[in-house]
Amino acid sequence: MALNVLNKVNSPKDLKELSKEQLFTLADEIREVIIKKVSKTGGHFGPNLGMVEATIALHYVFHSPIDKIVYDVSHQSYPHKILTGRKNGFIDSNEFSSISGYTSPKESEHDFFTVGHTSTSVSLACGLAKARDIKGTNENIIAVIGDGSLSGGEAYEGLNNAAASGKNIIILVNDNDISIAENYGGLYQNLARLRETNGKAENNFFQSLGFEYHFIKDGNNLESLIETFSKVKDSDHPIVVHMYTEKGKGYADSELNKEDFHYIMPFDLETKKTLFESSSEDYKEIIDAFLCEKASKDNRIVGISPGTPMLGFNKFRDSHPEQFVDVGIAEEHAIALASGIASQGGKPVVSIHSSFIQRTYDQLSQDLAINDNPALILVQSGGISGTDVTHLGIFDIPLISNIPNIVYLSPTSKEECLAMVEWGIEQVEHPVAIRIPNKAVVSTGEKVDADFSQLNKFKKMNEGSKVAIVALGSFYQLGEKVQGKLKEEMGINATLINPRFISGIDKDMLAELQGNHQLVITLEDGVLDGGFGEKISRFYGDKDMKVLNYGATKEFTDRVGINELYERYRLNEELIIEDIKNVIK
Amino acid sequence: MALNVLNKVNSPKDLKELSKEQLFTLADEIREVIIKKVSKTGGHFGPNLGMVEATIALHYVFHSPIDKIVYDVSHQSYPHKILTGRKNGFIDSNEFSSISGYTSPKESEHDFFTVGHTSTSVSLACGLAKARDIKGTNENIIAVIGDGSLSGGEAYEGLNNAAASGKNIIILVNDNDISIAENYGGLYQNLARLRETNGKAENNFFQSLGFEYHFIKDGNNLESLIETFSKVKDSDHPIVVHMYTEKGKGYADSELNKEDFHYIMPFDLETKKTLFESSSEDYKEIIDAFLCEKASKDNRIVGISPGTPMLGFNKFRDSHPEQFVDVGIAEEHAIALASGIASQGGKPVVSIHSSFIQRTYDQLSQDLAINDNPALILVQSGGISGTDVTHLGIFDIPLISNIPNIVYLSPTSKEECLAMVEWGIEQVEHPVAIRIPNKAVVSTGEKVDADFSQLNKFKKMNEGSKVAIVALGSFYQLGEKVQGKLKEEMGINATLINPRFISGIDKDMLAELQGNHQLVITLEDGVLDGGFGEKISRFYGDKDMKVLNYGATKEFTDRVGINELYERYRLNEELIIEDIKNVIK
Repeated sequence: MALNVLNKVNSPKDLKELSKEQLFTLADEIREVIIKKVSKTGGHFGPNLGMVEATIALHYVFHSPIDKIVYDVSHQSYPHKILTGRKNGFIDSNEFSSISGYTSPKESEHDFFTVGHTSTSVSLACGLAKARDIKGTNENIIAVIGDGSLSGGEAYEGLNNAAASGKNIIILVNDNDISIAENYGGLYQNLARLRETNGKAENNFFQSLGFEYHFIKDGNNLESLIETFSKVKDSDHPIVVHMYTEKGKGYADSELNKEDFHYIMPFDLETKKTLFESSSEDYKEIIDAFLCEKASKDNRIVGISPGTPMLGFNKFRDSHPEQFVDVGIAEEHAIALASGIASQGGKPVVSIHSSFIQRTYDQLSQDLAINDNPALILVQSGGISGTDVTHLGIFDIPLISNIPNIVYLSPTSKEECLAMVEWGIEQVEHPVAIRIPNKAVVSTGEKVDADFSQLNKFKKMNEGSKVAIVALGSFYQLGEKVQGKLKEEMGINATLINPRFISGIDKDMLAELQGNHQLVITLEDGVLDGGFGEKISRFYGDKDMKVLNYGATKEFTDRVGINELYERYRLNEELIIEDIKNVIK
Repeated sequence: MALNVLNKVNSPKDLKELSKEQLFTLADEIREVIIKKVSKTGGHFGPNLGMVEATIALHYVFHSPIDKIVYDVSHQSYPHKILTGRKNGFIDSNEFSSISGYTSPKESEHDFFTVGHTSTSVSLACGLAKARDIKGTNENIIAVIGDGSLSGGEAYEGLNNAAASGKNIIILVNDNDISIAENYGGLYQNLARLRETNGKAENNFFQSLGFEYHFIKDGNNLESLIETFSKVKDSDHPIVVHMYTEKGKGYADSELNKEDFHYIMPFDLETKKTLFESSSEDYKEIIDAFLCEKASKDNRIVGISPGTPMLGFNKFRDSHPEQFVDVGIAEEHAIALASGIASQGGKPVVSIHSSFIQRTYDQLSQDLAINDNPALILVQSGGISGTDVTHLGIFDIPLISNIPNIVYLSPTSKEECLAMVEWGIEQVEHPVAIRIPNKAVVSTGEKVDADFSQLNKFKKMNEGSKVAIVALGSFYQLGEKVQGKLKEEMGINATLINPRFISGIDKDMLAELQGNHQLVITLEDGVLDGGFGEKISRFYGDKDMKVLNYGATKEFTDRVGINELYERYRLNEELIIEDIKNVIK
């Protein structure tokens, strides 16, 4: 397809010169570009295809960057990027990596925030509006938020405040009737009623909060969009525009299968075959199968997911619907719900991404840990990675392990992982969290002692001398490599320890090491500051033992490759041996 | 007043035997008991007086503890405690300290959670309901939540989920038309409309979420309460009962001045004079005055409070209404709003209690720190204290200081505090947080160098040898005492360091100390795990320097006196010297 119209559009002002006919063609061209690009690189597919017309209309009617558009989660911002000077990042395969998957002020003056978590747009837009009001200017502030994001508490806090501000702010609700997975919550009955009644249902949620309300029946119809946006532009009070769009629009498979096409791995457009080599086993699937089996025998087990059932409940949600709750994107509720269930003898299992556990610190502390209720939390995708800055998995260790009462465990293999899950479900003493490895499955074939009730008891895997390696969870295999290399290069038979517990240290074992060790090294797959290794450094502070802590530096990295990060943090056996040589002379 | 009726009530079942007339008398007696007790001990006053009739009605109609009542924040649970076997804790002054100010499962089978933060009741109640449903029993689950608590995101997540559950759950909205301070948000227009229309307003917020809705015009009228509660009891679907109560009812002053009588310090009922000796100066007042003056000259300064304007904005909110936003109890929104304002050159200042900063970790990380916007956050009441377990101020250091980009400062005196506030407002590089001391104001009378832009630069206050004391913030004065005692007892002229920065260490200075020091001790007024001292232990891990870290143990303490905690954590100069003698021989 020749990009006849898109070729002319280098910034939003070029849009305003186009005829209606050309705008229609532009929509087709943008859609084509997105389908081609995302099929090659992977990325958010459905959310962007649904937003093509609305984005064109926004830039046709409003004057970005004077008027300011904030995209919630911003995984629907590809059309916006294409229209704001970044189209080459979607057309030229050499440029693909230059553009991030989320909005970024570093990329463009049309982006106001680096965003990747849901439910934040309205509050951030309120900030832009307040800044405008103290300056005394009069631009439009627009927050674009999907129906899925509306289940998060921050979105509600933002709406509640935006409505009361009494000033210009336009909330564009992009309702495609699906979150990442299915929507859940009372609000969605209201959105459904509004869609069915062309926006005329009784008890309009948005009007109840005080917003002026507009409904767009076909949110992929450019003309209706332009008409409504023109109407609400320069309003002097808060407005919600609720538009009904089709997620995945313009690609048959993504229209049919909205969940699988929310985010995709690379695939071949012609053959439709995946280009992504997945390893044969996956921790999430192993746990899913394990939980399905357990739940069949014990109806007290309740799976809980904050809008991400693919993180360990893919089969579970279908096989045990009565024992499963997808709370929507509502991590706070997920943890409090689990605490409530556990308080009455239920056995809740919450599975949550390391980066999203950040959204529920207070519930972990207050609702769960203070009450010491025995819920189980599976922390997924924790570890150093080359991901976007908004999805880093390195902060869960300081976050969880410094809250009293929570037992945070870190398995080193499939067998140990399942033993921990089993124990975490059956024990009734404390909240337990397990950091599921973000790496390929390691299987030892050996049965693991399934009792972790003696808290903070480390396991010595090799008894040696001089150097002891405390290798946590997914870095245990790195510990083995360091041990091997130490023997090979320095003739040292190092002690190797699997600490198993993140949230506390084995003081007896550490004290014992003083007898015939000079150096303890700690390896953890997360940020060093506030982490696991520092607890060991503190323990040895007044003793004759040297300690070296390995892990990530406290920094935000954005799509920096994992190998580069390992090198930067000296996380390989060669560099670690170099350091050891400097300490042990 | 003789407690003729209350004397007969030792548990909720005794209530059910009483006549209507006796119930009225009981209400008067409970009110009398609360006024007398709280005037002597201090505590939550208005919220409890408003809930007397509703609590009697709940226990008259429902069968606690089979039916389960969850009180939000639970600072309105005194009448509940009085009716559930704990009345002596309110009548007998020798028993006052035996009963906490919040619900506690340790105290009674009628309490289901230890609660002290707002907005959690609905989610916790959903947990009780789900546990019931998997067991197949059919008790009633009731969440009692105030209008103020409804502004928090967790409450909304809970409501959204409760509404969709389709099962018995009763949300009793205790609407007294005021939060701790004034309510703010679109929802409150809806509640006002509902009150004005006897519950018949268009666009009912609760109905929009799918709840069956009942309105009680006079929430202090026992008969209406009993009538409505009887009607909704044993419902098979989610219900909201919205009752209009009078906060502070039954005591003239608290009816008139609802904010000041939300929580009170002890006072004499006859003379109405306070029995609380306050020190002459207070950090919150000093900062309030400072901000008022600055804001008068610079309209870019915007004060932001999540429902607690008394934390530094008491004067500010009246003197600069256009530059002040009380967002309601909505900490997530407060931080995101600040980030948005700061992104456009505004100068937001958020003041927030150490314990409540926990409610906004993800916004600190994602909305603020990743975007590196120069908002200023004042963290109030951080430090070891004898408070209730739900209001501990010891976790803010690990929480804030391990997030990249945020500069976390800790002043040691009034002068340094104001210099930090000044710098924090004027600098444009990073988010800045300041840990306002929770102790009596220390004034040195000396002007403080107001530039903190060279990050993590510690300040050496005394150059000595052998021992270096790194004394953070409100523990700087303890550092001085240790220094004095070291000279006196051991003849050591110790180096004394004011680190000023919590979020990073001065590696140059620490390296320099190696020249003529054997021991570094760190003092911090917070939990050791994940805290400041551990960073110094890590730095010295592979070096010839001994380190001792002082601070709080990772544990939840509940109303344990501060002196007992200091003793337990060895936080006084005698015990520290003892430890030093064991290291330096």
